Amino acid sequence: MTRFVAGVIAALTIFSGLVSASRELIDDSVLRLPSDSSRFFQAEDGDDSAGTRWAVLIAGSSGYWNYRHQADVCHAYQLLKKGGLKDENIIVFMYDDIAYNEENPRQGIIINSPQGGDVYEGVPKDYTGEEVNVTNFFAALLGNKTAIKGGSGKVVDSGPNDHIFVYYTDHGGPGVLGMPTNPFIYANDLIDILKKKHASGAYKSLVFYLEACESGSIFQGLLPEGLNIYATTASNAEESSWGTYCPGENPSPPPEYETCLGDLYSVAWMEDSAKHNLRTENLHQQYELVKARTANANSGYGSHVMQFGDIKLSRDNLYLYMGTDPANDNFTFVNENSLMQPMKVVNQRDADLVHFWDKFRKAPEGSARKMEARKQVMEAMSHRMHVDNSIKLIGKLLFGIEKGQNVLDAVKPAGQPLVDDWSCLKTLVRTFETHCGSLSQYGMKHMRSIANICNAGIRQDQMAEASAQACPNFPTSPWSSIHRGFSA
Amino acid sequence: MTRFVAGVIAALTIFSGLVSASRELIDDSVLRLPSDSSRFFQAEDGDDSAGTRWAVLIAGSSGYWNYRHQADVCHAYQLLKKGGLKDENIIVFMYDDIAYNEENPRQGIIINSPQGGDVYEGVPKDYTGEEVNVTNFFAALLGNKTAIKGGSGKVVDSGPNDHIFVYYTDHGGPGVLGMPTNPFIYANDLIDILKKKHASGAYKSLVFYLEACESGSIFQGLLPEGLNIYATTASNAEESSWGTYCPGENPSPPPEYETCLGDLYSVAWMEDSAKHNLRTENLHQQYELVKARTANANSGYGSHVMQFGDIKLSRDNLYLYMGTDPANDNFTFVNENSLMQPMKVVNQRDADLVHFWDKFRKAPEGSARKMEARKQVMEAMSHRMHVDNSIKLIGKLLFGIEKGQNVLDAVKPAGQPLVDDWSCLKTLVRTFETHCGSLSQYGMKHMRSIANICNAGIRQDQMAEASAQACPNFPTSPWSSIHRGFSA
Repeated sequence: MTRFVAGVIAALTIFSGLVSASRELIDDSVLRLPSDSSRFFQAEDGDDSAGTRWAVLIAGSSGYWNYRHQADVCHAYQLLKKGGLKDENIIVFMYDDIAYNEENPRQGIIINSPQGGDVYEGVPKDYTGEEVNVTNFFAALLGNKTAIKGGSGKVVDSGPNDHIFVYYTDHGGPGVLGMPTNPFIYANDLIDILKKKHASGAYKSLVFYLEACESGSIFQGLLPEGLNIYATTASNAEESSWGTYCPGENPSPPPEYETCLGDLYSVAWMEDSAKHNLRTENLHQQYELVKARTANANSGYGSHVMQFGDIKLSRDNLYLYMGTDPANDNFTFVNENSLMQPMKVVNQRDADLVHFWDKFRKAPEGSARKMEARKQVMEAMSHRMHVDNSIKLIGKLLFGIEKGQNVLDAVKPAGQPLVDDWSCLKTLVRTFETHCGSLSQYGMKHMRSIANICNAGIRQDQMAEASAQACPNFPTSPWSSIHRGFSA
Repeated sequence: MTRFVAGVIAALTIFSGLVSASRELIDDSVLRLPSDSSRFFQAEDGDDSAGTRWAVLIAGSSGYWNYRHQADVCHAYQLLKKGGLKDENIIVFMYDDIAYNEENPRQGIIINSPQGGDVYEGVPKDYTGEEVNVTNFFAALLGNKTAIKGGSGKVVDSGPNDHIFVYYTDHGGPGVLGMPTNPFIYANDLIDILKKKHASGAYKSLVFYLEACESGSIFQGLLPEGLNIYATTASNAEESSWGTYCPGENPSPPPEYETCLGDLYSVAWMEDSAKHNLRTENLHQQYELVKARTANANSGYGSHVMQFGDIKLSRDNLYLYMGTDPANDNFTFVNENSLMQPMKVVNQRDADLVHFWDKFRKAPEGSARKMEARKQVMEAMSHRMHVDNSIKLIGKLLFGIEKGQNVLDAVKPAGQPLVDDWSCLKTLVRTFETHCGSLSQYGMKHMRSIANICNAGIRQDQMAEASAQACPNFPTSPWSSIHRGFSA
């Protein structure tokens, strides 16, 4: 009886929310007729009463210079926990080297915004350290307990009425997402897992929020409709995503923090979710707000938030995936972006350098810390120079001085996936890394070039010869090391 | 008659200023008795009516990353010009590669503070480019026209009743000041020139304002009393001085500026002078205010302003050296540091890196500009690493692994000059540079180490052997190039 009453109240609140939302949704050709809202009403009500909410939260990086990704994930956990999700239904992947990192000025504490409180306390450590890998992530998503190695063993043990929310945040590149352990996540493999999950009938709908550079490339031309999956990404297939709350920028972290605290798309959705009654805001509304904030007033320091898959699912209220914090019951959604303000942000690819630089700059003249930071800047930059130059040279060796760069830079028409043959991409990545060292976090940006080398029909032996010529010596930089394996 | 009335008014104003100043001056054992003020009164009046004010302004650097030094000097020119000095009595040394530098966002304009106006217009270009060298600087100071090569030929053609103001701003190191062309200015040579100038009876008093790292070392134990010279320096003999209005700091320059606009000590004296009736403020009062502001609330991001020579000259009003802007006639000096606020500043030695970094950070991903800036950061940092490591290794080769660093780092007791034998210092600098490349702007910091090698009695052949072992290959970095000559 109590559940019934609550359902009616929720439904009424949702209905009133839809009135203001309907105009927003016109572009997507949904909710044009009044009858739509009643259909929606019924669907929502049914889902909510029957299914369980599941969440998989994953930070794909490690290292203090990547503080922000684990901060994002911890923050997401706190949000879902307050929303009413149970720990048994939230699976957290984080390397867990931040809270007690020697660089962390507040030991045991992680914050996700300059004035924000601790988001680390209570976060379940399901998979940490080397357990944060592609195999475990895919197994957890599939609910395949036997494939899991290490960790809590928690998996998405979901049924046909359940709702799943997946949130990933890290570096990425065309067609790939980073992991703290090699290999990377390749887009085609992730899509296969999602298809398998769908085929197993283990969810009613799934929402995927993805923050990474070139994150649009993960779904573009790859995620079909009909899987009951709705995905949004921080950027399109060809651009960087952005770190925020970075030293020297505005807003900046407390002065003792020499690292970025969050990512622009991530804090946009979380800061929006944190202050509303999520029964009154739907996915589409949040998408629009996050898109506007992440565009950062089209300043050139922002990215284009994209949506993929079954767009009609964006009629669902956030409540269906994130629950809602009872403290916000009076904070009905209004369609305005109170959080939107031009922010000074940092290209995700430069955020590690921002950390090393800030450390260098603040360290006392002549101190060991200053020398160490200088070495870190040097190593990171010289690795970048090496990777950029190697790829450029390989392009010229394969396609000639004139055409080389054009082939590498080519972009496929919108809606098409990055590469025709994903196994070719992986093979050529391994071939490159055998001779030239790890692509690493930064080198992910060259995935499009390697994909284009595949698309041009280059064979492995040709790639091997070009790589050997471009990299006569295996680089000694720690960033180039492949002792942790190939990234493919 | 008019002059007499003005003199009386000025004298009265000065006298009232002295009441508040007297407590400040107790430490220097002057102005303890009421009778002192009348002595002071007469001296001031006499000087003012008889002599001419001369000024030599010199920026010791070139390169857009050193924008601030030439901005300081241009600002100083505007101040003196407004104060009533004539162009024929102001000699400006500046490389003049800033105003129309391709990096300068406001072509033809130089500013010295975030909201400041243009300070470049009208600045006499007496000595620019390669004409900014030690020989010309010393000749101009001595009034030796025949020794000047190039430039306007303007020199300090002063007489026994004249007052001379010298202002130098640039990088420095223990015992040396930088120049845009090699060699550096060595402290002993500068002191010799000042002694010569004094011996020629060509001034009544001379005030030297000096901004540079370790600038205290230029006068400490070297500038005797009795030359009628009063000098203040931005820092003591063992510490950095600081750039200010730097990107990413607070206050920061307008966003289009990727470089520091000023130096902390320099803007402190100029912003103080610019707003007062300088008939009512004396050198000591300005020294105290500049000292307080440059200490930067003892935050660790500031330096200790020092005074040397004939301290009693600090009773002189600033008017005697800088004139005064008639627009400030109503702005009587009050002893409070309205300009003093904690500022976020940058170690002078890192200010070039701040430029390269800011350029890197703001340049669009994948752009040629970003690649160029990355290369600049790398080259500057790898040069620094090379110089630091070479000196460290030479110390160990000469004095053993255990004692090496201690010998290099030793500091002589307060009041003693850096080195006993300056020609040894110069010889060993040339020896080092023959094998290890130019010390350059950054490497000046190691002058103390090389001085200590002299003080320890090391001969040139021993230094040559150690340098050859430390630097088996001559470095290829542009910063290490000695095509512009040795720095000694």
